[in-house]
Amino acid sequence: MHDLSTTLVAVATPPGRGGVGCLRISGDRAVDIANRLFQPSGKRSPTSADRPCFGRFRGRDGRPLDHGYLVIFPARRSYTGELTAELWPHGSPAVLAELVEGAIAAGAQAAGPGELTYRALRNGRLDLARAEAVRDLVAARTLYQARVAFAQADGALSRRLGPLRESLEEWIARGEAAVEFVDESETHLPGGELQRAIEQAREVCSELLAGFRAGRVLREGARLVIVGRPNAGKSSLFNRLLSNERAIVTEIEGTTRDTLEEQLELDGIPVRLVDTAGLRSVRDPIESEGVRRAKQAREEADLVLLVFDGACPLQEVELKALRRAEQPPETERTVVVVNKCDLNGARTMPVPHPEVLRVSARTGEGLDELRAALRRLLVGNRPVEDPLITNSRHARALEQTEAALGRAAGASASGLSEELVLEDLREGMLHLGEITGEFTNEDLYDRIFSTFCIGK
Amino acid sequence: MHDLSTTLVAVATPPGRGGVGCLRISGDRAVDIANRLFQPSGKRSPTSADRPCFGRFRGRDGRPLDHGYLVIFPARRSYTGELTAELWPHGSPAVLAELVEGAIAAGAQAAGPGELTYRALRNGRLDLARAEAVRDLVAARTLYQARVAFAQADGALSRRLGPLRESLEEWIARGEAAVEFVDESETHLPGGELQRAIEQAREVCSELLAGFRAGRVLREGARLVIVGRPNAGKSSLFNRLLSNERAIVTEIEGTTRDTLEEQLELDGIPVRLVDTAGLRSVRDPIESEGVRRAKQAREEADLVLLVFDGACPLQEVELKALRRAEQPPETERTVVVVNKCDLNGARTMPVPHPEVLRVSARTGEGLDELRAALRRLLVGNRPVEDPLITNSRHARALEQTEAALGRAAGASASGLSEELVLEDLREGMLHLGEITGEFTNEDLYDRIFSTFCIGK
Repeated sequence: MHDLSTTLVAVATPPGRGGVGCLRISGDRAVDIANRLFQPSGKRSPTSADRPCFGRFRGRDGRPLDHGYLVIFPARRSYTGELTAELWPHGSPAVLAELVEGAIAAGAQAAGPGELTYRALRNGRLDLARAEAVRDLVAARTLYQARVAFAQADGALSRRLGPLRESLEEWIARGEAAVEFVDESETHLPGGELQRAIEQAREVCSELLAGFRAGRVLREGARLVIVGRPNAGKSSLFNRLLSNERAIVTEIEGTTRDTLEEQLELDGIPVRLVDTAGLRSVRDPIESEGVRRAKQAREEADLVLLVFDGACPLQEVELKALRRAEQPPETERTVVVVNKCDLNGARTMPVPHPEVLRVSARTGEGLDELRAALRRLLVGNRPVEDPLITNSRHARALEQTEAALGRAAGASASGLSEELVLEDLREGMLHLGEITGEFTNEDLYDRIFSTFCIGK
Repeated sequence: MHDLSTTLVAVATPPGRGGVGCLRISGDRAVDIANRLFQPSGKRSPTSADRPCFGRFRGRDGRPLDHGYLVIFPARRSYTGELTAELWPHGSPAVLAELVEGAIAAGAQAAGPGELTYRALRNGRLDLARAEAVRDLVAARTLYQARVAFAQADGALSRRLGPLRESLEEWIARGEAAVEFVDESETHLPGGELQRAIEQAREVCSELLAGFRAGRVLREGARLVIVGRPNAGKSSLFNRLLSNERAIVTEIEGTTRDTLEEQLELDGIPVRLVDTAGLRSVRDPIESEGVRRAKQAREEADLVLLVFDGACPLQEVELKALRRAEQPPETERTVVVVNKCDLNGARTMPVPHPEVLRVSARTGEGLDELRAALRRLLVGNRPVEDPLITNSRHARALEQTEAALGRAAGASASGLSEELVLEDLREGMLHLGEITGEFTNEDLYDRIFSTFCIGK
């Protein structure tokens, strides 16, 4: 990935068949190589100042293969920051594959996953946090996810971190001066002022981190595990709950035999719904494996929905589940639901739990309240307006920044040497820089860009 | 599909995730609608004279959603022959879906399968045969298929049919004059000259039809059914035979329980390989169902490969299969192969069949000859250079043209009235026009375009 002198080629459109496809060639030789694959309909080969040029694409044997457009982007206007040629033939995998082969035969190199974005980063077109957001934008399963990813790709997080970095840079410079000219008393770090600055910086970190739980759920989706007796109406409840949300097209693989999983969207949050049948008394030793798995599913859940049948008295196993739900940390991730409240008695059936939602999957009663409760538990009470921290790598780096700043503040308050304070400030700066990739090593680049798709 | 006054919108790139995606908006309001979804980075909105314009895409709520390009094509340079705007955001399904919704909210209509190509056809940008070839080009599974489809999309068939149509048109005009001015003897159809013209036209039809078997195999792929005793080395033979060909990515659904199917490529011809275990004596009544299915697979085959174990004497059931292979039409589609010719005696083991190929799946001996024999049987002896008739709809129309011309020639030779000759000529012309879509009804259009992908 590290040789930046080659000219890269990749299919930039999704794999599969469609009306149009796009082949991207990026690097010094992009136009030469594109001209080997393209014969303009007019007399003149196109330049970067031109609109898309119509013509024919040719295979390795020089024979025509398709009609379409060639577009040339100068380095200053391209995604990668390099001279780029885009070929737009039909979305035919056979044609695109041959054109890639043709470009390689003409001297291009097949781009690996994320390699074009890596070029963009190395050419200063975006920083690491923005590059990761581009990947998240492409991967977005819901419009809401896409919006949040775009805000980051557009530089929202990088802009938020900018003043923080400038402040740290300034204090580090002052600290270095103080250490170097240790005899000139006026260059000492003024403890109170420094501590206030650090406090402000830590507040920015905390604030960003506070949005991370919601951000993570938004980016990665949430696991919602339904627990309840057979016939409590779990399936009908969920069909109802999610019927006016658009189901996500992706199908989930690896569903275990005894739990049922579905992918759904709840107010823009991708939710993986897991249905278990764990709430029953087990006598059969074979069934206990099923119960063990249901228990595991509950443990991995972001949210547990305990569903009771409002028309049946609670059983011992259900009362036990309720008691468990009252213990922290279970309280924070459990929603207790009494279903069938359209039936006699269900509206008033006593359930020993402080907060019980009564719904009817049949009539739809109480569903809006349930949806609001789920959203609140998943992404918090405040309206989630584009949380900036959605990526656990960023969260970890921010936590480390905050911790280092805390140590710096402590060292300064304890009157420790300026050199020690400076060391902590530098460490905070280093972790901050990991987010945007300023002080990132090539190994981390490799790890991050390998999660991109090819052609990006 | 028939309201041509609307402005259409569709995602033109393949479904799924990728570096870039393309939304196509076609119709009078294309630019207005695109401008509702796009905010240029510069001050000026782009026109059709411009190179791709960078900017931001907006969702229905007006908030930014992605970065990318807007490209405008004037009607005379667009695929559809209408004013067209192409939006190139990232290849994010969530972003593309929202932009489609935004375009619809701004007044566009979601395009159905093939609807953009239908517009192109109605605007005279291509004829029906070329439109079908564009579909085949996108669907091509091999480079060879793509080449043949492109030649047709490029108008090769339409050009070949042009002189034929002109000649028929001329004779019909002369015939109509002869019927109208029946008293003026010099306008009579000169029988000999007409018959020669018809003969020439029929020859063109026959020639095109002669390539159809190969063309059909090329377009639709061939079913190659392997028959042989267990342990005759069928699997190893085929792994060997096809190991240096690129396996096609598509997976085959609906494989029956007792026959094994694989999709492979043989010299650019897509081949569906069906493995059966039919050649054995059946005692078990349950097994006879397997044998019945193997028999059915043989009957549906384009080619049957009879594989014998060169190290074992032929069994009665194998001799029976050989006798069957000698009867027409089986001869034309059976290849008799003796495997394991690296073992003692296999090279000389007598097999009562006029043409036997001796191969060794283990060493690779005889494999080139086998491959050549398969290709010859599938697409004929002559080199298949872009057969023009690959589509059974075209073949049927050509057969009907040829038949009508035959009747016209017969009527003329028998001295029947010029009106009767004219009727046959007109019918021939009608069928010829079905290929390029000149005399095609809307129902047929609907049927054909519904096989296109959306966005094409």
